[in-house]
Amino acid sequence: MADPGEPVVLGELLVVLDREGSATLHEQLELWLRDQVRTGRLATGTRLPSSRALAAALGISRGVVLEAYSQLVAEGYLTASQGAPTRVAATSGSERAPVAAGALATRHAYDLRSGVPDLAAFPRERWLRSVRAALREAPLDALGDGDPRGEPRLRDELMRYLGRARGAAPEPEHTVVCAGFTQGFAILCRSLRDRGVERIAVEDPGWARHRAIAERAGLEPVPVPVDGDGIDVAALAASGCECAVVTPAHQFPSGVVLSAERRAALLDWADEADGLIVEDDYDSELRYDRVAVGALQGLAPERVCHIGSVSVRLAPGLRLGWVLSPSWLTGELTYETALAEGPASAVAQVALADFLARGELDRHLRRMRPVYRRRRSVLLDAVARWWPRASVLGVPAGVFALVLLGEGVEEETVASAAARAGVGVEGLSAHRHRQLDSARGGLVLGFGGMSEPALERAMELLASAR
Amino acid sequence: MADPGEPVVLGELLVVLDREGSATLHEQLELWLRDQVRTGRLATGTRLPSSRALAAALGISRGVVLEAYSQLVAEGYLTASQGAPTRVAATSGSERAPVAAGALATRHAYDLRSGVPDLAAFPRERWLRSVRAALREAPLDALGDGDPRGEPRLRDELMRYLGRARGAAPEPEHTVVCAGFTQGFAILCRSLRDRGVERIAVEDPGWARHRAIAERAGLEPVPVPVDGDGIDVAALAASGCECAVVTPAHQFPSGVVLSAERRAALLDWADEADGLIVEDDYDSELRYDRVAVGALQGLAPERVCHIGSVSVRLAPGLRLGWVLSPSWLTGELTYETALAEGPASAVAQVALADFLARGELDRHLRRMRPVYRRRRSVLLDAVARWWPRASVLGVPAGVFALVLLGEGVEEETVASAAARAGVGVEGLSAHRHRQLDSARGGLVLGFGGMSEPALERAMELLASAR
Repeated sequence: MADPGEPVVLGELLVVLDREGSATLHEQLELWLRDQVRTGRLATGTRLPSSRALAAALGISRGVVLEAYSQLVAEGYLTASQGAPTRVAATSGSERAPVAAGALATRHAYDLRSGVPDLAAFPRERWLRSVRAALREAPLDALGDGDPRGEPRLRDELMRYLGRARGAAPEPEHTVVCAGFTQGFAILCRSLRDRGVERIAVEDPGWARHRAIAERAGLEPVPVPVDGDGIDVAALAASGCECAVVTPAHQFPSGVVLSAERRAALLDWADEADGLIVEDDYDSELRYDRVAVGALQGLAPERVCHIGSVSVRLAPGLRLGWVLSPSWLTGELTYETALAEGPASAVAQVALADFLARGELDRHLRRMRPVYRRRRSVLLDAVARWWPRASVLGVPAGVFALVLLGEGVEEETVASAAARAGVGVEGLSAHRHRQLDSARGGLVLGFGGMSEPALERAMELLASAR
Repeated sequence: MADPGEPVVLGELLVVLDREGSATLHEQLELWLRDQVRTGRLATGTRLPSSRALAAALGISRGVVLEAYSQLVAEGYLTASQGAPTRVAATSGSERAPVAAGALATRHAYDLRSGVPDLAAFPRERWLRSVRAALREAPLDALGDGDPRGEPRLRDELMRYLGRARGAAPEPEHTVVCAGFTQGFAILCRSLRDRGVERIAVEDPGWARHRAIAERAGLEPVPVPVDGDGIDVAALAASGCECAVVTPAHQFPSGVVLSAERRAALLDWADEADGLIVEDDYDSELRYDRVAVGALQGLAPERVCHIGSVSVRLAPGLRLGWVLSPSWLTGELTYETALAEGPASAVAQVALADFLARGELDRHLRRMRPVYRRRRSVLLDAVARWWPRASVLGVPAGVFALVLLGEGVEEETVASAAARAGVGVEGLSAHRHRQLDSARGGLVLGFGGMSEPALERAMELLASAR
């Protein structure tokens, strides 16, 4: 029973304590009280009943109430001093600012925007088998902070895989596992900035994110033109940059491949400028007409920092990538990676090692190549059928294609009409660093994630949306 | 048969083509040739046999050789021009710099250094069950780039869990999943720097990494003293800083808990200075004498940026953490997280959501608390028995304890003697920002990962090593 001299303010509020529940009575009372204070149902300054009175009212022991009160005093929700009643504290958070609604991503019925792979084809069962093996076999070290460069077993398997599939020359000692291209490149840019590098050449047109990441790390991106043979190495040399980030296997967004002459010239440039080539190995393994060209890194491991990931090979959501570092940069990249909490989940790393060792990645890519090749054909056919004045650039590869629009067709007009028709597309200008009046408009279309009928329908809508 | 006018230089080198293997003959030949060039066994300028001659020598079709040659020309390992023989290119990477041996981490028989949990107790089977559920249930979006703040389902579960277990007030809209405290704090520091913040108060003594991360992001760490009640708020106010990073639940390395008065004062300071408190929620849930104090964030969500992770709760190797952001910072943190490839593996995120929803984290912590409590007792007993002049600071909590050495005992002397005896320990001075002559030496001992007998033996060795 409540002491009559002590108003039981809590009586207006319903306290339900569950004697059968998994939480103790003390935990329940504490949770309930904290919640009342926080939401303002118990306002600042409110005097609480004495522990004795509340215990009697609730039919519980006084010790339980005292425990809850003292916990909430310790946390700052209540105040109490010797002899004075317990009250709701002033800084009780009860006047929390209302929360703004989160930004909603635009949704399209057909999303042709990004260069992601077919996520529905992700081999969940096979990946699970590798995760299971990893959880069974992962050494204890792997569950701790581990080697900041990543799990040794994964770095070993990457050496074998990238040597075989990409013609790269990885050394496990100089391989740094990261969470994907973006993290790897960000870490590299910060390390370069620390060494005093101020500018980095980027391809133009080129992936907008190259520029964003470089800028974020304090480097000035310097656009260097790309033509049908890839980056213009003479223009690169003239830029005076010491570093350049390139996409040699399948240039984004133009879709061209760096020619043999340019590859040699680029490596010569690196030697002459005493510079560094950053090789973005995006969607390099998806070539449909011939075997993909090997990685530049294999030719000059001390001149090339190679960054790749499972994003297009498997799924970006796995957050697994790798940096093949020149030996002179490994230390700095390792330090930066540790500070960036770099090497993704140890379990995922060991799972990827297992997946590679079982040949599952090869199997998956072998399965996906004809799928993507057919989707690309659907896209090309649709362009030919519906957009006679447009043209598709680049080699048969990857999960995106650049469609150059006919003369006088405005990219923005097409893109907004497409959005209204439910088709999300990305304009080429997003990936142009210099906006030239003379440049033709274009759309960078990602076809990786869409079935052939859906792709056909999307292209039809797109064509009619002009 | 080789053309007599064409020296078959490859004859000296053994080519073994496996007709039964999974790789095609062309792939095998290409791999072999690339390797010969790269290792320098085929030197720059070496003239290769004609495709006809090599095909005859190897007993394979000429098309296979042509395919391999043209691939390696495209990659830059070989050069060829109309009419001239194919040669090993100059930039062939055959003069690769030798690679330095990687740094070897020092290994100790007994490692008392870091505050990691008991990794052997990691519930692998239960985690696997959640991974399996995640792989079955994860939406396709989750395998793509997803929401840069992290999987919605995990942000929902974190709201429930952290509300319940930490007295925090998380809003899913303002929760940003990250790869751990380090990444979360690094991202926050970069965002603050971008807003024009130049200095951040850090606890002294305090975790050395707070300082390192802040400095790396371009902020100046300003040490503010910690006493038996936690950070000295008057000194903080006098510092003129607008931001402070604190460990209220269990101060590292002193082991004290921020007192109720100081909690209130700290929140008042944040209001008066219009400042931000960064709450590092390290090992907050491991309190052995009473329920842990709730998170500061629950009291003032717009004044506190709360960062936590599964590192001590489960295992650092999972790379999963969370930032509860004030609503006004969420946008910037989200952008930074996207650029840092923040939200760890989507599969792991959904797995953690499942793990939380099943109550597995509660179960694991309930199981571990008595284990750690006993280990801490072993450590305290050992100090009392062998080091009468030393004293252990802090409350019964967490996976580390600070042992203050007796007057006149040199921290470095003890640490190096211990290392020689096979015991790795970390000196307190590593976590002191200002080195005071008057300060007593101390050791920060991590006891989480060691069984009681091992801990006893380690402490015995440590005591005899003085």
